[in-house]
Amino acid sequence: MTYRDQLVGERTDVLDRFTLSAHVVDSPLTPNERVASWLAERAAVNQFQVERVPLDALSGWQFNAESGNLEHDSGRFFSVEGVRVRTDRTWIAEWTQPIIVQPEIGVLGILVREFDGVLHCLMQAKMEPGNINKIQLTPTVQATRSNYLGVHRGAQIPYLDYFTGEGGGRTLVDALQSEQGAWFLGKRNRNMVVETLDDVPEAADFCWLTIGQIRRLLAVDHLVNMDTRTVLSCIPFHAPGAFAEPASPFVASVLHSIGPDSSPVHEMTEVLSWLTELRARRELLQRRVPLYRAAEDGWYWTRDAVEHRSGKYFRIVGINAALGNREVPSWTQPILAPVDAGLLALITKRISGTLHVLVQARADAGSLNGAEMAPTVHCQPANYRDLPDHCRPHYLDQVLSADPARIRYDRMQSEEGGRFLHAVNRYLIVEADEDFPERTPAEYRWMTLRQLTSLLTHCNYLNVELRSLIACLNSVW
Amino acid sequence: MTYRDQLVGERTDVLDRFTLSAHVVDSPLTPNERVASWLAERAAVNQFQVERVPLDALSGWQFNAESGNLEHDSGRFFSVEGVRVRTDRTWIAEWTQPIIVQPEIGVLGILVREFDGVLHCLMQAKMEPGNINKIQLTPTVQATRSNYLGVHRGAQIPYLDYFTGEGGGRTLVDALQSEQGAWFLGKRNRNMVVETLDDVPEAADFCWLTIGQIRRLLAVDHLVNMDTRTVLSCIPFHAPGAFAEPASPFVASVLHSIGPDSSPVHEMTEVLSWLTELRARRELLQRRVPLYRAAEDGWYWTRDAVEHRSGKYFRIVGINAALGNREVPSWTQPILAPVDAGLLALITKRISGTLHVLVQARADAGSLNGAEMAPTVHCQPANYRDLPDHCRPHYLDQVLSADPARIRYDRMQSEEGGRFLHAVNRYLIVEADEDFPERTPAEYRWMTLRQLTSLLTHCNYLNVELRSLIACLNSVW
Repeated sequence: MTYRDQLVGERTDVLDRFTLSAHVVDSPLTPNERVASWLAERAAVNQFQVERVPLDALSGWQFNAESGNLEHDSGRFFSVEGVRVRTDRTWIAEWTQPIIVQPEIGVLGILVREFDGVLHCLMQAKMEPGNINKIQLTPTVQATRSNYLGVHRGAQIPYLDYFTGEGGGRTLVDALQSEQGAWFLGKRNRNMVVETLDDVPEAADFCWLTIGQIRRLLAVDHLVNMDTRTVLSCIPFHAPGAFAEPASPFVASVLHSIGPDSSPVHEMTEVLSWLTELRARRELLQRRVPLYRAAEDGWYWTRDAVEHRSGKYFRIVGINAALGNREVPSWTQPILAPVDAGLLALITKRISGTLHVLVQARADAGSLNGAEMAPTVHCQPANYRDLPDHCRPHYLDQVLSADPARIRYDRMQSEEGGRFLHAVNRYLIVEADEDFPERTPAEYRWMTLRQLTSLLTHCNYLNVELRSLIACLNSVW
Repeated sequence: MTYRDQLVGERTDVLDRFTLSAHVVDSPLTPNERVASWLAERAAVNQFQVERVPLDALSGWQFNAESGNLEHDSGRFFSVEGVRVRTDRTWIAEWTQPIIVQPEIGVLGILVREFDGVLHCLMQAKMEPGNINKIQLTPTVQATRSNYLGVHRGAQIPYLDYFTGEGGGRTLVDALQSEQGAWFLGKRNRNMVVETLDDVPEAADFCWLTIGQIRRLLAVDHLVNMDTRTVLSCIPFHAPGAFAEPASPFVASVLHSIGPDSSPVHEMTEVLSWLTELRARRELLQRRVPLYRAAEDGWYWTRDAVEHRSGKYFRIVGINAALGNREVPSWTQPILAPVDAGLLALITKRISGTLHVLVQARADAGSLNGAEMAPTVHCQPANYRDLPDHCRPHYLDQVLSADPARIRYDRMQSEEGGRFLHAVNRYLIVEADEDFPERTPAEYRWMTLRQLTSLLTHCNYLNVELRSLIACLNSVW
């Protein structure tokens, strides 16, 4: 009996079925050797024209005369407004900044179907105007509420019915999850996986891949887009236990940390109390204000951008996009362009025989629910270049100087290309050695992967950057 | 071996210890026969003077000249502002209303200690200016963040250290939970239970009661205050199984519904997906606006109140309070006074052998997280008196005309007396008979008590009205 036969034979529930799909790393439906050429072909067939335009050349978008907010004539899509934030941090405790306001919940949905007993995901090769590399691998559907209510009168979104309850099918994953709190005000999307038994036609930009195949693609820079990473992170697994032949001691310890034998240093009650305590004790006052008030804090306007006088953070710029595989042939829009790449790093360590990851509780300007769990290091390092040492984020220097032999994942990945222009982060996972201190500052906690996974059923526990890293960490097995 | 000895002998974890305390319905520390006289004595010893004053006579409070918001000079405590709400409901889809803004998280904490092997709760006989009946039974500590940071320079709050981590002790329950979404903008408090091993001195207004004793007091109107009810609802129990001698078939079915043998009609994945779907699909746009803008929707100002021209909903009024057992001897404040009593009703029904409760997904003007689970009926019936029948809330007529023989709980209880003046609701639990339809409108779902309890570890699933009803429902066993 092969390993695969064993797994198929053992399948008793949806977790087992997801686990099997994660272990199947190639498939006749779309063989791995075809994936690169299929993506190249889709990129070649579809035009990708994105150019910067002045903000006053955006069609349908206006700076509101009274507030200075950048708004669409329809009152839909999103707007760029100001947010005033007051915290009790010692360093930059209070500020006003531009922020994207999009008070509606969209769908990020992967349609799955069994072929030859193995769940396959219907993935799309999709262009987004902010992509650094034209085309990326996205969920079956990425739709804002405006999209699916047809506000922009574009073409019908393929496969959307499966995620609105009109297409039948069984919902396997369905959780509201937050997006970039530094750039979005309280934004969340619905992360869904829906299984169908239908004989689904495969449209031109779509193909079926196993979870294992998608994971392999996480080894490539800027290929698996943010929306795919966050949906992947919400898929629960059984640690496959005795079947697995772990490729390395680290892989073995990841699997053990997901499994029922993992032994956390803090019980779940303690972890939730730690987060609740920080949410309650730390001040985080957020108030939407007219965008023009950001001028008080160093933001200024040119014809081409809203940007900060320090040259840090991000710019709001305008683009004109003509993308071949989109519902509308061309459009203009504002977009948020980070000035520098970010660093998102996770320190892991075996403690009392179980691999733990070090998470921090972090609140951003746009956090809906106070602090969420974030990567060990979550920053744009360039923002700290001119600041005294005591302002540097905890653990930043440790991850930057990590022994290459202890780096378990290190890739550049993109954030969402519909709202962000060339927003890229270095995703880094380090396995600390025995000497690494277990004692942490108050905002940090060691958690097992089993604990983190159990929280992904609920909203606003793990921020999008940590969810992405969890997807990357799971790509090692 | 007595029933009690059996339970003590069986104790293996905190759930068992809570369950034991729930089953101990009298205690030598504060015998039941003493409770009423102790409360009467505390009420007699402490003065309670509350009188209405004009809004312009509030000391330290001003209507902001620009926004019309009612604010405290310190910028702390709370303010009364406007909120503009847009929904996709067919009836009153869009409106502006006054709302209490208090963007900080307070603590509602019960300190517990074991006496003779049984957990006892340190409860306070506390006056709040809005109480309809002077004194009520409150948690050990009710403190706003301003309170515990000493903003009002009042006397030290007794026992607060146990809830700030400075008093030692073990946190058994710690969850952020929402409060009245129709009256508060995104308000939440931390619901905590902390166990101490210390020999805690019992201050004058405090006494030790078992969970069973507090539950018995839920049979009295307006005695167990809202804060106690919500903390009680967050305490997890084991269904005591074979030990218990259920007092009635209904009690037996409540215990079965809490226990591991309960069989839900919808799996948890389905229930969470239903709530996520409603949070995502229903429009709920909330925007803080200047209070003066509420005038556009029929709110008007007199010297004595901000109120609605229809005579419905609530009024914002001023009071002067001198309460004997408070940190500051006297003060003035604005307070929200509902015009009518509300009705909060839960329909329960045995389905496939397991008791289910019928919850609705409901969003209010101030909901932080979109819809939460709410009682089957949640309304002020008087608001509907002049409206056509199709606007009446679902199930309102069924609960109002319920056969008295099927009513399992029916008491008047108060909402929080610090922000609300004489805010009272009828809490009603009905056991529907076999013929009651199991098919429901899309916003309703049948859930077991085990399912509801498991969600109380996390924030913003059950609204405060439903949590109160869960505490009332648990008082039957």
